[in-house]
Amino acid sequence: MKKAIVALGGNALLRGDQLGTIEEQEQNSKDTLENIVYLIKAGYNIVITHGNGPQVGNILMRNDAGEEMYKIAQMPLDICVADSQGGIGYMLERMLRNVLKENNIEKEVVTLVTPVEVDINDEAFKNPTKRVGKIYNKAQADKLSNEKKWIFKSDPKLPDGWRRVVPSPQPIKVMNYPVIDQLVEAGNIVIAVGGGGVPVYIDEKKHVRPAEAVIDKDRASSVLGIEIKADEFYILTDVPYVFINFKQPGEKKLETLTVKEAKEYLKQGMFGEGSMAPKVEACIKFLENGGKKAIITEARELSKPGSGTQIII
Amino acid sequence: MKKAIVALGGNALLRGDQLGTIEEQEQNSKDTLENIVYLIKAGYNIVITHGNGPQVGNILMRNDAGEEMYKIAQMPLDICVADSQGGIGYMLERMLRNVLKENNIEKEVVTLVTPVEVDINDEAFKNPTKRVGKIYNKAQADKLSNEKKWIFKSDPKLPDGWRRVVPSPQPIKVMNYPVIDQLVEAGNIVIAVGGGGVPVYIDEKKHVRPAEAVIDKDRASSVLGIEIKADEFYILTDVPYVFINFKQPGEKKLETLTVKEAKEYLKQGMFGEGSMAPKVEACIKFLENGGKKAIITEARELSKPGSGTQIII
Repeated sequence: MKKAIVALGGNALLRGDQLGTIEEQEQNSKDTLENIVYLIKAGYNIVITHGNGPQVGNILMRNDAGEEMYKIAQMPLDICVADSQGGIGYMLERMLRNVLKENNIEKEVVTLVTPVEVDINDEAFKNPTKRVGKIYNKAQADKLSNEKKWIFKSDPKLPDGWRRVVPSPQPIKVMNYPVIDQLVEAGNIVIAVGGGGVPVYIDEKKHVRPAEAVIDKDRASSVLGIEIKADEFYILTDVPYVFINFKQPGEKKLETLTVKEAKEYLKQGMFGEGSMAPKVEACIKFLENGGKKAIITEARELSKPGSGTQIII
Repeated sequence: MKKAIVALGGNALLRGDQLGTIEEQEQNSKDTLENIVYLIKAGYNIVITHGNGPQVGNILMRNDAGEEMYKIAQMPLDICVADSQGGIGYMLERMLRNVLKENNIEKEVVTLVTPVEVDINDEAFKNPTKRVGKIYNKAQADKLSNEKKWIFKSDPKLPDGWRRVVPSPQPIKVMNYPVIDQLVEAGNIVIAVGGGGVPVYIDEKKHVRPAEAVIDKDRASSVLGIEIKADEFYILTDVPYVFINFKQPGEKKLETLTVKEAKEYLKQGMFGEGSMAPKVEACIKFLENGGKKAIITEARELSKPGSGTQIII
């Protein structure tokens, strides 16, 4: 039986133009999961991973507001990411159980809280780049920088907007991958590695420590795919195909792409930095380490087998 | 190999006199988990369940503050409980991995997000009793009651304190119990049923729906114990023994207690309503449905086998 990792992008759960209510998130999830049923019907055993950008952003803002209004101790970033894995994972599990029921598919769904190991010596820790949480003004940012040792960068879109930046290190190991693999091999649908995983590192005493960081969910999904020897890796995003020169002169839709071609386009900067480029990189890593095929597409394209950009060795 | 459910009380994670910082919660968890190692060394396969009272209380307050300060959409109670399962479960998993490492025990630890089914016709939905979240004044409570249809009860300890009350229905089924059982039987330590589980019900179309409720963690742990045919059920709390007439004239420590005796004492109101009585009831249910022994005690007593109040058929 073929094994696939399906990574849901942020917009599969919550779109930028939405308020973020639970009703919106549930409807978006349901729409996405109804398309994933095509893979299940085609006989795949699947692991679903997902982003958490808007949700963890809201959790961080609520942490800030709770401290400000009620003096409730703020939780560190690792706990906030873990919280988001619980909430989003449960929501996806519940919607998926209902979608399976409607399709008369008998499968167990199980959601795992997932720590992911990073290297504390990763260069990313010296250069935090990932913006998280609330937009502050300069005075607030200076105060927090002083009090909590947070690092801030200005927001290019705002005159006096400052945001906390955290490192985005490379994932090394999905800590519970052997359990994920057992569960998937037994035919369960597993939801895991939410938000790219809760970042932890192993210290010199071999203890697991929290890392104040976030992990890219496509990178972490790629690592999991390699660890559990998945055949295929689906990255579901908001475009049906990968394009080169996207929304520019010479735009071209890519239907099939070899790893060699993908590397060449990456070198030429043909994909959006911070948007499509890291997705293509995650696919390349998967394919160079045993994966058979990686697909970047929109959820609704799953109803048409062979659709979307297919990346192969 | 013997199978045990170990339910951690709120104070195992956070004590009433503490601020609720992550450092406090980590230290308390570590202290508790170091005692659970005695059970692991004694050869038990274990599932750890836990409460979430203070944590979900803080999550609800932050939700309120986030809406008030930043207009962030509030999440419903089921999502808040699921968030708390993520955060607490990850923290326990991380601390347990370290405690196992220090004790040279090689075991996988896995944390599951756990929906628990309740009956939407449970009498509890007609009479919500469980206080959750922030203390409001009358005017605020009336406004929220109007806007969100929340039900409020006055706080007996405060002159103008009103708190939202939610139903606490009986758990019927731990939805992922077959997976929990597979994982435990394979020798993994499983953390599940956090906060008594995320309450859901099955509607007339067989869909899984969220219930705005909370589930007692000892009751849910008892149900899980029955489902996975656990041999023993440990409820870890803040006293080493169950007492009758606790802190009153005629106080008596109970070392061994039969189900029959326990039922008699319950009938006579010898245990604290809302504190010890529901724990004893959860034990009785477990023992009347296949469990061999239930133990109510403090974590530190686990180092002395046979200690704590032992309840038997």
